[in-house]
Amino acid sequence: MSSIGASKVSLSHISTEELWKQTGRYSSNSELLRVNDRRESGFLLAPTHEEEITALVANMVHSYKDLPLRLYQTGRKYRDEKRPRQGLLRAKEFMMKDLYTFDMSHETALKTYEDVRQAYTNLFDELKIPYLVADADSGNMGGKLSHEYHFVSPKGEDNVWSCSSCSYVANEELVEKKAPEAPASNNRNPLIFTGITLDRKSIVQIVVPRPEHLQSSEEPSWDHVSEYINVHAVKRSAPDLDTGIEAATLAPLLAGHRPSPNDRVMIDQFFKHNTKEADVPHNHNAPHESHHGDLTPTRQGDSCPRCSHGTLSVQKAIEIGHTFHLGTRYSDPLSALIAIPSSKEKQAIHMGCHGIGVSRLIGSIASLLADSQGLNWPRAVAPFEAIVVTTPQVSEEDSVSVYDSLHSSRTDTILDDRAKPLGWKLRDADLIGYPVIVVLGKAWKEERSVEVQCRRLGVKKVVKEDEVNTEVQQLLAQL
Amino acid sequence: MSSIGASKVSLSHISTEELWKQTGRYSSNSELLRVNDRRESGFLLAPTHEEEITALVANMVHSYKDLPLRLYQTGRKYRDEKRPRQGLLRAKEFMMKDLYTFDMSHETALKTYEDVRQAYTNLFDELKIPYLVADADSGNMGGKLSHEYHFVSPKGEDNVWSCSSCSYVANEELVEKKAPEAPASNNRNPLIFTGITLDRKSIVQIVVPRPEHLQSSEEPSWDHVSEYINVHAVKRSAPDLDTGIEAATLAPLLAGHRPSPNDRVMIDQFFKHNTKEADVPHNHNAPHESHHGDLTPTRQGDSCPRCSHGTLSVQKAIEIGHTFHLGTRYSDPLSALIAIPSSKEKQAIHMGCHGIGVSRLIGSIASLLADSQGLNWPRAVAPFEAIVVTTPQVSEEDSVSVYDSLHSSRTDTILDDRAKPLGWKLRDADLIGYPVIVVLGKAWKEERSVEVQCRRLGVKKVVKEDEVNTEVQQLLAQL
Repeated sequence: MSSIGASKVSLSHISTEELWKQTGRYSSNSELLRVNDRRESGFLLAPTHEEEITALVANMVHSYKDLPLRLYQTGRKYRDEKRPRQGLLRAKEFMMKDLYTFDMSHETALKTYEDVRQAYTNLFDELKIPYLVADADSGNMGGKLSHEYHFVSPKGEDNVWSCSSCSYVANEELVEKKAPEAPASNNRNPLIFTGITLDRKSIVQIVVPRPEHLQSSEEPSWDHVSEYINVHAVKRSAPDLDTGIEAATLAPLLAGHRPSPNDRVMIDQFFKHNTKEADVPHNHNAPHESHHGDLTPTRQGDSCPRCSHGTLSVQKAIEIGHTFHLGTRYSDPLSALIAIPSSKEKQAIHMGCHGIGVSRLIGSIASLLADSQGLNWPRAVAPFEAIVVTTPQVSEEDSVSVYDSLHSSRTDTILDDRAKPLGWKLRDADLIGYPVIVVLGKAWKEERSVEVQCRRLGVKKVVKEDEVNTEVQQLLAQL
Repeated sequence: MSSIGASKVSLSHISTEELWKQTGRYSSNSELLRVNDRRESGFLLAPTHEEEITALVANMVHSYKDLPLRLYQTGRKYRDEKRPRQGLLRAKEFMMKDLYTFDMSHETALKTYEDVRQAYTNLFDELKIPYLVADADSGNMGGKLSHEYHFVSPKGEDNVWSCSSCSYVANEELVEKKAPEAPASNNRNPLIFTGITLDRKSIVQIVVPRPEHLQSSEEPSWDHVSEYINVHAVKRSAPDLDTGIEAATLAPLLAGHRPSPNDRVMIDQFFKHNTKEADVPHNHNAPHESHHGDLTPTRQGDSCPRCSHGTLSVQKAIEIGHTFHLGTRYSDPLSALIAIPSSKEKQAIHMGCHGIGVSRLIGSIASLLADSQGLNWPRAVAPFEAIVVTTPQVSEEDSVSVYDSLHSSRTDTILDDRAKPLGWKLRDADLIGYPVIVVLGKAWKEERSVEVQCRRLGVKKVVKEDEVNTEVQQLLAQL
């Protein structure tokens, strides 16, 4: 954060209903934990701080000369999760580093966005754990600039798609695939799903090509809709569609349905070029028909939408960071305005918000790198880079001398001189997960050599006293 | 905290009703901020963490061999204050450093208590701001070992009494004065206040000597009771007494009162030796009579209870820290038990809790040391010990050289090389309150001398380049 000139702040963990009502985020949010004080004033435990920081900046900043401004904090956040689980990965109370950026124009805000992306990339690179940067730009849907940072992990709750050839990465909600170029043969008998809106007043028909493995006589029920259509894509165009309804509940509703002007037909892009009009159902009562988007689910092996020959595959992933260009989404309703030279009227500040889930990052690093003997911390986040473990037979002078030598060559070191057996101390060091363990044991007594251990790299070797620093630094460079 | 071997922890800011019910602190606490999640489970925003830490230790510690254990954290606390005010001094959300200590016996717990007191004294000494350590031991009332640390300040909400001669310091609730030794002349016509209990079923008579300035015909009403009796002392013996009732409400209740076995007479110690029985009212219906404690308010100039010739005076003060020996108050109900060699049955852990109000400490230092030009931070808590302020005419090489010289002699220094006028930068540095300001201005250009400023000590002097370090260190030693 200091590399991008951000200043540290510390906001209250408690916010007021009032502010959240101004931005329209109060009533709709089922994850807000609400608190009432003795006067029954409405407070909430902040799940994020856009409202608080924007209100603060609105009070303090009045001219373009005060910008750019970059403010961050590391603190607790609160969400009334439906299913808290997996320890630190999803909890009602968690630790987050959140950065808020304030710029005078759209252009400078985009420059800031790139600065933050670079800082985040530098940070995640330093952990030396593979990560994915998913494009979370909703693209044709209207577009906000946004990226998600993920660790690939079987414990993840996100599905992230990536291309085998180019750098295209997208999450499940936004993944696209290549539009078909040539007519296909199986366009005679499309699959038609008929659903109903949440208010039960309108029906939505979704028309997608029949997959090759599905016989032409088979008509899958609504209960299997998500196997054949991309529910995220459909919901973006028809947010009022009840995708969760069961077929048994749906059938009588459809049977009793009266045509409504809000009835719709959504047709997959496949039919745009490949099908004669006659093959597609046409509903004269449905004025809103024919959305030619990509409505089929993405499957392993589908063609990448960005490059010529890559194919897509999906991995389970843990979201550890998110960058978001906000524009004037919060500065408008909260009147965070500045005087700028080019305009007589004050203009809304252009904002961004950027978060790293600190407790979740720690939890996911722990689960990714731990083995049966204990934790394993990357150098960048380890409590200490190296531990010097001694036996009682080694003199205090000797152990302090090795410690001092490592410490003075800028290795962040701790000395375990507790009066416990060597085996116990080594197991304890493995459990805690120091990147490198330096043992003063048998080899020290015989020839003033130390054993350097690195479980993660499978290294265990005896080196001379004057080679310890070099050896440890070489190992740390890989961790 | 590390000087006493304490380990840092980070507990949730949210605690559960359940735990607080186990220690009996849930229902009675009107300052708890309560939170319900989507399942209507009862949570609260922790105002302190005895319950959480004791439950945690109860799960982890089972033998005396794991003790002593000292755990601390620095985090937010929450209290639904009736009257939040004075900025950081009294807020619903505040920052606290809290330490919890765990020992195997009463004796080792007392040793721990002394270690903590010493650590707190060292810390407050380092701030070089006068502070009082008030004995908060309730003494004859049954006694818990406890001390309060106070800054003397007109903004304080506590009244702290101290002796002109010895080290006796006590807060308003607990201050004592010397018991009278010789008979006095004004014992013929004692003052008698008659109050009623909160349940309106019993009366309490309080008998104190008549102050000299009060004519014998005057009978002050209950509305002035706190001018003539020590309400804190009376409440300790009669916690059910309604001291807040108004005289107009009280009169008809007393008129209609029927004698009850719980009626009491409390007689000030003054009459113990100084008065014939006949002078004191006697109530044959009151079995609980004649508490000979000190029931009169302490006044400026009263004799110190601890030394032979000191007198007491009162000061407004801000409580910034508190040490408390808890014994088994929390380990008993939460079953934090350990095996010890001398006993077949597991024994409750002996605990202590010790807090420093971090945000309040910062707020009170700010208000104590600020002047019309800005803040003034003691060296120990200043963001930087010194700032080097330069004019644009000074070369970057020169300003960095002075900065480096200070930095390498272990002065925590910041360089203000912003392209702003010198006057603006000096006002900014005064506002922020760096202990020492080093100016590279006119004198630098003429003779490579710097101006060293310390507003708090009234110092502003020009010194040669090679004397800067010595000069700055001499100033810092006083801050």
